[in-house]
Amino acid sequence: MATLLTPGPVPVPPWVQAAMQQPVIHHRTPEFEAFYQSFLGDLRYVFQTSGAVAASLGSGTFGVEMAMYSLFQKGDKIAVLDMGKFSGRWADYGEVLGCEVIRLQKPWGETWQVDELMEKLKPHGQLKGIVVTHSETSTGTIVDLEAIASKLRVAYPEILIVVDAITSVGAMPYYHEAWGIDCTVTASQKALMNPAGLVLFAVSENGRQAMRPNDPGDFQHVENYLTSAEKYSFPFTAPVIPLYGIAAALAYIKKETLPVIWQACHQSAQVFRRGVEEIGGEVFSQYPTDSLTAFKMKDGDIHALKSILEVRYGWKLSGGQGELKGKILRISHMAEAHEGIMQQVLADLKLSQARLRA
Amino acid sequence: MATLLTPGPVPVPPWVQAAMQQPVIHHRTPEFEAFYQSFLGDLRYVFQTSGAVAASLGSGTFGVEMAMYSLFQKGDKIAVLDMGKFSGRWADYGEVLGCEVIRLQKPWGETWQVDELMEKLKPHGQLKGIVVTHSETSTGTIVDLEAIASKLRVAYPEILIVVDAITSVGAMPYYHEAWGIDCTVTASQKALMNPAGLVLFAVSENGRQAMRPNDPGDFQHVENYLTSAEKYSFPFTAPVIPLYGIAAALAYIKKETLPVIWQACHQSAQVFRRGVEEIGGEVFSQYPTDSLTAFKMKDGDIHALKSILEVRYGWKLSGGQGELKGKILRISHMAEAHEGIMQQVLADLKLSQARLRA
Repeated sequence: MATLLTPGPVPVPPWVQAAMQQPVIHHRTPEFEAFYQSFLGDLRYVFQTSGAVAASLGSGTFGVEMAMYSLFQKGDKIAVLDMGKFSGRWADYGEVLGCEVIRLQKPWGETWQVDELMEKLKPHGQLKGIVVTHSETSTGTIVDLEAIASKLRVAYPEILIVVDAITSVGAMPYYHEAWGIDCTVTASQKALMNPAGLVLFAVSENGRQAMRPNDPGDFQHVENYLTSAEKYSFPFTAPVIPLYGIAAALAYIKKETLPVIWQACHQSAQVFRRGVEEIGGEVFSQYPTDSLTAFKMKDGDIHALKSILEVRYGWKLSGGQGELKGKILRISHMAEAHEGIMQQVLADLKLSQARLRA
Repeated sequence: MATLLTPGPVPVPPWVQAAMQQPVIHHRTPEFEAFYQSFLGDLRYVFQTSGAVAASLGSGTFGVEMAMYSLFQKGDKIAVLDMGKFSGRWADYGEVLGCEVIRLQKPWGETWQVDELMEKLKPHGQLKGIVVTHSETSTGTIVDLEAIASKLRVAYPEILIVVDAITSVGAMPYYHEAWGIDCTVTASQKALMNPAGLVLFAVSENGRQAMRPNDPGDFQHVENYLTSAEKYSFPFTAPVIPLYGIAAALAYIKKETLPVIWQACHQSAQVFRRGVEEIGGEVFSQYPTDSLTAFKMKDGDIHALKSILEVRYGWKLSGGQGELKGKILRISHMAEAHEGIMQQVLADLKLSQARLRA
C-alpha cells in the first residue's frame, strides 16, 4: 500500500497504534480522571496556553462548527476570511447559524495582509467575532495570524477570534495564549498523527464568558467539554481509545519539544518547494504554509502523474479540491513526512515525469 | 484490571482491536468505497432494513441529537417518552431545538403501555414526531416498541418515529423496516463491542423526505451522511480506524446471525435476574430490558458492594445515575457478558454480601 503523504489523514505511527491497544477503561472512574488530567496538561503545552482546553469527538469540520455554534448566534455580525474550500465552509456555516456574515474573499492561493484586512473591515463597524483559518489546507496557504490577531485586538477589544488551526497546531509556531486567540480548534488526523475522529479546543476566559447558554445535554456546545475537563471528566461517554492515541502523540511532542517539531516540518517544506521548482514545478500558493505544499507541474496530466506516483512509486498525494480539481497536487510535511521522504518523492516525481513524456 | 460489565462501554474483543490495527487508508479512494459498501450492507442486516443507513462520529447522545436536529425544527410539536436519564435528555434537547415538547413522564423503572400512551396523546392533536427510547439504560427498562410503533402509525400516518436503540440494536429483536421506524440510532460501545465514538443510523424514505434543508457543510445533519453513503463515501473526513472496528463487529454478528446473538443476551439476562432474586436482590425495573439489569440488594451499602465486586472479584458494574445514585447497580448482558459470566458474578455477589455482613 502506498505511503500516505496526503495533508491529512497522515499515517498513524506504530507507537500510536500500540497506545490504542490498551484496554478500554470506564470513563466514570478515578483511573480515567488521572489519565485525562495528564492528557489535558500535555494538550495545554501543544496549544501553548495555561487556560482551558478539552477534547471532543468530531472531524475538523465539526470542531470549527462547534466553536462557531457555541460563540455565535443568529443575528451576530461576524467576519470570515474566505480563501479556499475550508475557510469558505466556515462562512457558509455562519450563514447556517443565521449570522450576518462578512465574507472576506480572496482568490484561492492568495492571502489577506493585515493592513488590507483592517481597511476592509472598517466600514462594517463593530463585530461580534472573526473566523480565521491559519493554514488553508485546500490551497496550502498561510495567514499571518499573529499580526492579524494583534491588530484586531487593538481595533476591536471585545472581538471573539476563532481559529481553524487544523493543519497548524503541532506543525508550525502557534501560541494560543500569547496571540490572544479566543478559541483554537485542531483535529487528530494531521500533525497529531492519529486517526480522524477527535477535535481539540483551547478557549480563552473571554471566549468562555461569551458563549451561548449551555444546555448540559448539548453535544455541540464546547462549554460542556470545558466544564467537565475542569474535573478531569467528559460530559458524554468518553472516546477512551481515540484519547489514548492522542495522549501518546501529545506526550511525544512534549518530549521532542515543539521547536524541534516545527523546524522539522519547516525543513521538509523548504526542501520540497526548492526541489519541485528545480524540476519544472510551481508552488501554487503565493504564501505557502509549512504543513503542506500545493503545487502544479508545468507540463503533463496531473491525474496521470498522481497515479504513477502512487501505483509505481508508492506515494499517495492529494489532488486539488473544488476549483483546483485536476490542477494541483498537495503533499504533507507534517509528522513523519520529513525532509528525507521529500528527497525520495522529488526523485520519484522526476522519474514519473520522464515516464509520462516517454 | 476489572472486567467491564458496565452497560456500555463493554470490553472490546481482541479481534475488534486487531481490525483497528489495519493501516489508515485515505477516505477519497476506491479502496474506501469498496470497504464502506460492504460495511453498509452488513449494517442493513443488523438494523434489519433494506433502506438507507450510515455512520457518523459521535457518542450515543450526539446520535439522537443529530436525528432530532435533522427531523424537527423550532415550533414542531413532538412527544417524548421520558422514563429515565437518557429518554429525559431527549425531551430536554427537543426544548433546546425550540420544539413544543409533550413530555410523557413515568417514574423511573416504569414503562408506557401502548393503550395508555395513545390515550395520553389524544388531546394533543396532530404530532410532527415522537422520540422513543427502546431500552432505557439508566433504569434497565424496555418499552414494547413494536406495538407502540404500529398503533402510532395507524393513528398518526405522517408521524416521524425516532428511536434511541442504543442498548437494543444487536442485543434484542429489532426490526427497523418491519416496525415502520423513521430513524433508528445506535452507538458503537454497546452491543457492537467497540470503543465509544461512532453512531449508526437507519432512516426511512419518509424520514429522509421530512428532513430540514441540508447545508452540505453541516456536520450534525443526518442527510449529509445518507447522501454520501449512496456513493459509498463519507461527507467529512472518514474516521477510518473506528469504522474498521465496527466493520469487524457487523461481520461477526452477520456470521453468528442475529437470533443467536439475541438469544445469548436474553439467556444472560434471565440467568442473572433469577439468580439475583435468589440471593436477596431485587430487579429494579418492572419491565426489564434484556441488554442490562438494574438491581437493588436488600441489605447493605450499595457503594461498598460495588467496590468489593470490583476490587476483590474483578467485576466492574455501574451504579445508578441521577435519582438512582447509590441505590442500584447495573450489569450488562451484551456481547461477551454471557450466561457463564453471570453465574460467576452471582457467586461473587453472594460472597461480597457475606463479606459485608461479616
